[in-house]
Amino acid sequence: MYYIGVDLGGTNIKAAVTDERGRVIAEGSRRTALPRPAERVADDMLLAARDAAKAAGLRDADISGVGIGCPGVVAERGYVPYSNNLDWKDFALGEYFAARSPWGFPAVDNDANVAALAETLSPEGVAHGARVALIITLGTGLGSGVVIDGKILRGCEVGHMVLNEHGPVCNCGRRGCFEYYSSATGLIRMTREVAEREPNGVLARMTRERGRIDGRAAFDAMRRGDAAGGAVVDEYIGHLACGLANLVNIFRPDIIGLSGGLSNEGEFILAPLRKLVAPQLFGGGEVRIERCALGAKAGVAGAALLAREAAKTS
Amino acid sequence: MYYIGVDLGGTNIKAAVTDERGRVIAEGSRRTALPRPAERVADDMLLAARDAAKAAGLRDADISGVGIGCPGVVAERGYVPYSNNLDWKDFALGEYFAARSPWGFPAVDNDANVAALAETLSPEGVAHGARVALIITLGTGLGSGVVIDGKILRGCEVGHMVLNEHGPVCNCGRRGCFEYYSSATGLIRMTREVAEREPNGVLARMTRERGRIDGRAAFDAMRRGDAAGGAVVDEYIGHLACGLANLVNIFRPDIIGLSGGLSNEGEFILAPLRKLVAPQLFGGGEVRIERCALGAKAGVAGAALLAREAAKTS
Repeated sequence: MYYIGVDLGGTNIKAAVTDERGRVIAEGSRRTALPRPAERVADDMLLAARDAAKAAGLRDADISGVGIGCPGVVAERGYVPYSNNLDWKDFALGEYFAARSPWGFPAVDNDANVAALAETLSPEGVAHGARVALIITLGTGLGSGVVIDGKILRGCEVGHMVLNEHGPVCNCGRRGCFEYYSSATGLIRMTREVAEREPNGVLARMTRERGRIDGRAAFDAMRRGDAAGGAVVDEYIGHLACGLANLVNIFRPDIIGLSGGLSNEGEFILAPLRKLVAPQLFGGGEVRIERCALGAKAGVAGAALLAREAAKTS
Repeated sequence: MYYIGVDLGGTNIKAAVTDERGRVIAEGSRRTALPRPAERVADDMLLAARDAAKAAGLRDADISGVGIGCPGVVAERGYVPYSNNLDWKDFALGEYFAARSPWGFPAVDNDANVAALAETLSPEGVAHGARVALIITLGTGLGSGVVIDGKILRGCEVGHMVLNEHGPVCNCGRRGCFEYYSSATGLIRMTREVAEREPNGVLARMTRERGRIDGRAAFDAMRRGDAAGGAVVDEYIGHLACGLANLVNIFRPDIIGLSGGLSNEGEFILAPLRKLVAPQLFGGGEVRIERCALGAKAGVAGAALLAREAAKTS
């Protein structure tokens, strides 16, 4: 049994043929090339999928289903009411794709959900075998996927959980949201505030040298022994631990997998997180906190696994 | 098909025979009579269940299964590692009951979860037909049950979600928890603070007249036009709305059902909640917020429905 997974990103469309365990056999890709009409992007998704099938040497009949991971809100039958990253509104991606695809109706879900599915169902995934897994992506925003008994909890959005009712206004309109503090954007904002407040400090100098502030600056400054950098990291991880502890109390996951650029900090972020989260768990217990295992492959592998799971229930 | 539901409370053990839709046909009861050994309580649960079966005129073979709702933490196979209300630690309720029951192994879950199941699966429940339902009990603590596609989300505990990282210390050890603010206990604490600060105010007078402060005092004062009472209610509902909006953003429920004594305030609590929650929903959309429909019957009906659902999958 073979499946096709399509990972639609703001820059690239990636497609892969996988086996029934989500292992990539052959790939195809196209540029997303925004801005352009949603239909043209979907046409190129089909072409990338065809390239992957061709590279795998498979005929259409060999493919048991196709899955798609798409940024933004994804409703029933692959309907996308809204995608900020793609600048889509009310695009019937599932119907459009199905009308032109030889592989039947695609299974479509949000990209963070699809990546979470990959980390849970793929034998190489960090959450393989977990009954409840929580996958958090620390990027421009704070993406999340909750997988329970092998199924995505659809529509789940943890980034706009308030951690401070009287905190600063988030771009969603609420105050003190988890995403406001704990996305990479949140860390960069805190770093910039310190760099501006202390123009002779390490963070300000680093910013001038690098020409920009990224999510690594505070961690790098901390590793060089800079107290201000260390304080930014501590504050950042404190908020992240609070948000994660809330979610552990709610979902009781077996594991939290972190992905996104900040997860590359490895034990510099994981070790203090584990230490801060543990005492906040209601009724004790514990939770594993690890870095995700699949990296950039999670998107296509998860989309293919989504197709596999959809084929089971249809 | 008939089922027995047992609702174990701190004061009473209630049992009922229900039909396959969770409608109560006959009842039985015993006193919980704490403090006494867990085994003696379980013995009386069996007796209450036998009474109900006898009152219904049914033989053991007519009963397709038995379900139990139990306060505290409930693990696999009805194992209760901890119940604060009952003062239980590590009691194998499921095994103990099964060894003495003619109706097979009981299905056991937390009482708030069981009540949530009743409100979702019973034709008379407020959340009947909902794909995702969130049932919140505003009592001494803040109980919760999340039901997704007819299944309880086990282990889910929303009360110890932090709403204010730097808020007052909750009895769980974290700060500014949802339960700290939004349980009836939270409202009573706020009411008491105002009554003590303003000894000539309406709330202080009401406290002296009634001899105690309960969850109704602030609402009653507000209805009499007292500004201080109104301010307490506003603050209380503000926190409750924040916590509920967090949960709507996470779970996207079709409906929130409120139960517990404070839900008796009806539209005095529901109308402002709806108004405050709606603008906090990520990406718009809406959620119904209603008072639960089953009242005290939810416990036994939900336990019987839990047994029915367990029979389906076993």
